[in-house]
Amino acid sequence: MSRIKIGVITASDRASAGIYEDISGVAIQETMRDYLKSEHEIVYRCIPDNQDTIEETMVELCDREGCCLVVTTGGTGPAKRDVTPEATENVCEKMMPGFGELMRQVSLKYVPTAILSRQTAGIRGKSLIINLPGKPKSIRECLDAVFPAVPYCIDLIEGPYLECNEEVIKAFRPKQ
Amino acid sequence: MSRIKIGVITASDRASAGIYEDISGVAIQETMRDYLKSEHEIVYRCIPDNQDTIEETMVELCDREGCCLVVTTGGTGPAKRDVTPEATENVCEKMMPGFGELMRQVSLKYVPTAILSRQTAGIRGKSLIINLPGKPKSIRECLDAVFPAVPYCIDLIEGPYLECNEEVIKAFRPKQ
Amino acid sequence: MSRIKIGVITASDRASAGIYEDISGVAIQETMRDYLKSEHEIVYRCIPDNQDTIEETMVELCDREGCCLVVTTGGTGPAKRDVTPEATENVCEKMMPGFGELMRQVSLKYVPTAILSRQTAGIRGKSLIINLPGKPKSIRECLDAVFPAVPYCIDLIEGPYLECNEEVIKAFRPKQ
Repeated sequence: MSRIKIGVITASDRASAGIYEDISGVAIQETMRDYLKSEHEIVYRCIPDNQDTIEETMVELCDREGCCLVVTTGGTGPAKRDVTPEATENVCEKMMPGFGELMRQVSLKYVPTAILSRQTAGIRGKSLIINLPGKPKSIRECLDAVFPAVPYCIDLIEGPYLECNEEVIKAFRPKQ
Repeated sequence: MSRIKIGVITASDRASAGIYEDISGVAIQETMRDYLKSEHEIVYRCIPDNQDTIEETMVELCDREGCCLVVTTGGTGPAKRDVTPEATENVCEKMMPGFGELMRQVSLKYVPTAILSRQTAGIRGKSLIINLPGKPKSIRECLDAVFPAVPYCIDLIEGPYLECNEEVIKAFRPKQ
Repeated sequence: MSRIKIGVITASDRASAGIYEDISGVAIQETMRDYLKSEHEIVYRCIPDNQDTIEETMVELCDREGCCLVVTTGGTGPAKRDVTPEATENVCEKMMPGFGELMRQVSLKYVPTAILSRQTAGIRGKSLIINLPGKPKSIRECLDAVFPAVPYCIDLIEGPYLECNEEVIKAFRPKQ
């Protein structure tokens, strides 16, 4: 059985230039370690907010690295350099609107500016790509909301069987 | 006055091959009989999860059969053969994102995997097409949520006047 | 510092033909005066439900008039002449799905036909375009829900700094 790989992409001009530390990318990696009981390897990239670069990195992590899940942070707002959702849509065959809807709904409990987040999710081959917001606090809130559906989604796209730490997050798999 | 026709499309490789019974398609037909006081005819098709076939069947039911409403079941998940939302988008002139949003929100009360359903709705000419999930239980939950808006929607696209069994479902038509 | 301009577009065949008064356009202008402490100028257009005309008017208000915010009313339903969301999508570089989701959710508290509204929002250059429903009562409900995020959105797209009348509506700007 091949190793489970999870991709983490931080899209940030400043973090990729070393102007500040990528605490968001670190937060996702820690959350994955918290959630997953299955042994897994994190494939991490910190890149500028350049749409071509984001798309190429997504393709690399999905197709060449074989990540069953690729989680991004950054670039989901309305600003000119925010292009992560567009990159996601370009590389995915199927969009999953329910992820963005639920994440915005959850974030709206905390801040009215949650509606400015354009985050989405989609399927490329046997990989699920999920955009998360840029702030560490929102990252965990959003992941807590959507992750229960992630292992079953990866089952459906013929990826590896992910086991979660049940005391941290409960994966839901409907009885067939 | 021409007869009211409701289309029901089951997209399922296995049901269309006779491997199992199409209980979802049956459930939709029963729900329509429950809901509608207006006399109507059901035009039913059970077809494989092939995008061209789904599109052709939608076009047939809308344009040639003149169904004012076409309800689909199946093919809304993330798996490779799930292509009903894409078929719907291809044949519709207008998309109605509110249907999918509300159906996912309702299903989320029952299962966290509701966000995996990519179901949508749209308008083709004088027909409203609505995707429903594949499971009979979810079908009724979703229809109960969105159907109150369906008769008025069909009024607006110049379809027939649908009357509902008020004790089962209440159609809402705003006062002009 | 250049003057703050807010565009208001009413898309309505009948209002633009003078068949009835444009009470929706008036309602938006009054709401803007209520909300905004910053001095501002309203640039108002009342036009037919013609997609090309709507697109040209949006481009005019964004690019030539320099409106940081363009609010539309009308043309978001399922009827043949309802094409405002399509016009919005055509002129915007980025779509903001969270606006439509939240507005439909709010309207759903009042009427089940809220799901028939296809309203959306998007970014064109340094302008935010928001579609509102056609009815004056729904206009205020929707604006009350989304407006707290509007000033920060306009900050992010490098528009002018909007100050709100805090006792009427509270703009939210996250601490960096």
